[in-house]
Amino acid sequence: MRKIKELGEFGLIHKLSSQINFRASDSILGIGDDCAAYPVKSGKFEVISTDALVEDIHFKLSTIKPETLGRKALSVSLSDIAAMGGTPKRIMVTLGIPKKISVSFLEKLYSGFNEICNHFKVELCGGDTVSSPKCFFINVAVIGEAKRIFSRKGAKPGDLVFVTGTLGDSSLGLKLLAKNKTRGKDHKFLTTKHMDPTPRVKEAEILGRSKIDITSMIDISDGLVQDLHHICESSNVGAQIYEDRLPLSPELIRTCKRSSIPPLPLVLNGGEDYELLFTLPADGVKNLIRQFLKAKVLVTQIGKILKPGGISMKMKNGTLKVLPESEGFNHF
Amino acid sequence: MRKIKELGEFGLIHKLSSQINFRASDSILGIGDDCAAYPVKSGKFEVISTDALVEDIHFKLSTIKPETLGRKALSVSLSDIAAMGGTPKRIMVTLGIPKKISVSFLEKLYSGFNEICNHFKVELCGGDTVSSPKCFFINVAVIGEAKRIFSRKGAKPGDLVFVTGTLGDSSLGLKLLAKNKTRGKDHKFLTTKHMDPTPRVKEAEILGRSKIDITSMIDISDGLVQDLHHICESSNVGAQIYEDRLPLSPELIRTCKRSSIPPLPLVLNGGEDYELLFTLPADGVKNLIRQFLKAKVLVTQIGKILKPGGISMKMKNGTLKVLPESEGFNHF
Repeated sequence: MRKIKELGEFGLIHKLSSQINFRASDSILGIGDDCAAYPVKSGKFEVISTDALVEDIHFKLSTIKPETLGRKALSVSLSDIAAMGGTPKRIMVTLGIPKKISVSFLEKLYSGFNEICNHFKVELCGGDTVSSPKCFFINVAVIGEAKRIFSRKGAKPGDLVFVTGTLGDSSLGLKLLAKNKTRGKDHKFLTTKHMDPTPRVKEAEILGRSKIDITSMIDISDGLVQDLHHICESSNVGAQIYEDRLPLSPELIRTCKRSSIPPLPLVLNGGEDYELLFTLPADGVKNLIRQFLKAKVLVTQIGKILKPGGISMKMKNGTLKVLPESEGFNHF
Repeated sequence: MRKIKELGEFGLIHKLSSQINFRASDSILGIGDDCAAYPVKSGKFEVISTDALVEDIHFKLSTIKPETLGRKALSVSLSDIAAMGGTPKRIMVTLGIPKKISVSFLEKLYSGFNEICNHFKVELCGGDTVSSPKCFFINVAVIGEAKRIFSRKGAKPGDLVFVTGTLGDSSLGLKLLAKNKTRGKDHKFLTTKHMDPTPRVKEAEILGRSKIDITSMIDISDGLVQDLHHICESSNVGAQIYEDRLPLSPELIRTCKRSSIPPLPLVLNGGEDYELLFTLPADGVKNLIRQFLKAKVLVTQIGKILKPGGISMKMKNGTLKVLPESEGFNHF
């Protein structure tokens, strides 16, 4: 009996999806990207995605408030739509509910849903509630709209690699939560980045509206290196990133120093950053920087796309380090 | 602490959804119907729905083959789209996978998905696979297209009530499976109706294409009486059904007689029939019958819509019996 662990999540998805024959004639992206996409009206595309959060795998009820869980469940799903350059429009939520969950817990969860729906003007338009005796789970299906679709495929040698925001905060926040270290402003910032990530919907809209030739894009959910590998594999290219350009928050730097935690593994493989990672030709950089400055949002060039040959990092000391794919998050 | 059981599934949905403020300007149906719907291109609507199946609540791994489970998971979701008069186009499947599930199990499950996708020309265009240590679950989100939308709201006094197919087979099939009585042609027919229901996509397409003024429609998942109550509540009407017109399969009649099982509770409250229940004015009946005869599919007039005042059944002996809502399926 073959175990799922041996295949890994992506191997499993590949194996199973290869069994499915029927393809709609108008689909432009299917299984294997962040979303599926297809044209809906002249010049516009619909993008759809689904994401599940399972108790004790993606969250622990003892460490997250229901309002926060509600916000996070929606935010990580909206992030998938942003990753395609789309604007989220509608969601459907399925709840699998064990007996221990009270009505008051669900009301607080929904108040979290409501905050995100209002903030991003997304309609919660349906769903399903089912009894699930042994574990609580949330599934969110999102439908969005896009003028242009950014997929994982299309990065070319010579393109530059950019990332929004800062990296590693979420996984350091998770470490702090696990050790019950949540005192002080820095800890609060980091744990909030883990529990309450902001989907980069605004940034995706800026890119979608712009004329910039975004050649590939993904949201960082599995960690910078693993998600850059996803882009490289889909685009059949390699990449180099620069250690000294990786965007680290002051809160992460201070906390790592204080607790003697090496920051680099967090930044490279931490996961759940929900920042956008994307590539573009050098002639688009000026326009990109101008637009992001105007919107007052952080964006950093962290590397460049090379010919196929894996991913390496140019260290501060000038040496090159190979960054293999396998160190990212695999929850099986 | 208020328990979910006290509210029931529909009370819970009502309570939670009332917390959500944001509504998209173009939505024409939201929470509370089988699907959400909104216009996509001139004269067409998109309908979306989501459904979860949880191990030991909706199926037992010991009594259903993975191929059959794959077919059923998709069929019950396609049924929701049919209930709105829509044609299913795309699905996204989330799997919550415990360690005990093997790759070979999932391959068989996907071969079931594949059969339904091919049969109904539906594209499996994405999804999510997550680890779920304590229980196996499947969530299916479906997107369909409709020329006209049939909702639960709109039945008027004087309209006639119709149902496709036969009723009660699925719940008798479930009883047989529970008692391990699965021998002979009749038992096979009934257990197959439970494990492998046919979503009434073809029937919904006939109705959608026709000019018949369908005033309300639902698929019977909770049982005839409960789902007719859903129509009556949404439409603010009452209804009367006739015992002697309820469509019973010969297999159900023979099996009930042989095992001294009263058929009526199965037919009225059994659940999981996945037949379409709909209403129309009397002047549409001739056209309806002609179209269904031509397509060789069964449709039966079982009652009529009255002014508000609950649902009653005219018994074979001429007396009236009140049919309260509460006897349907409530899985909390």
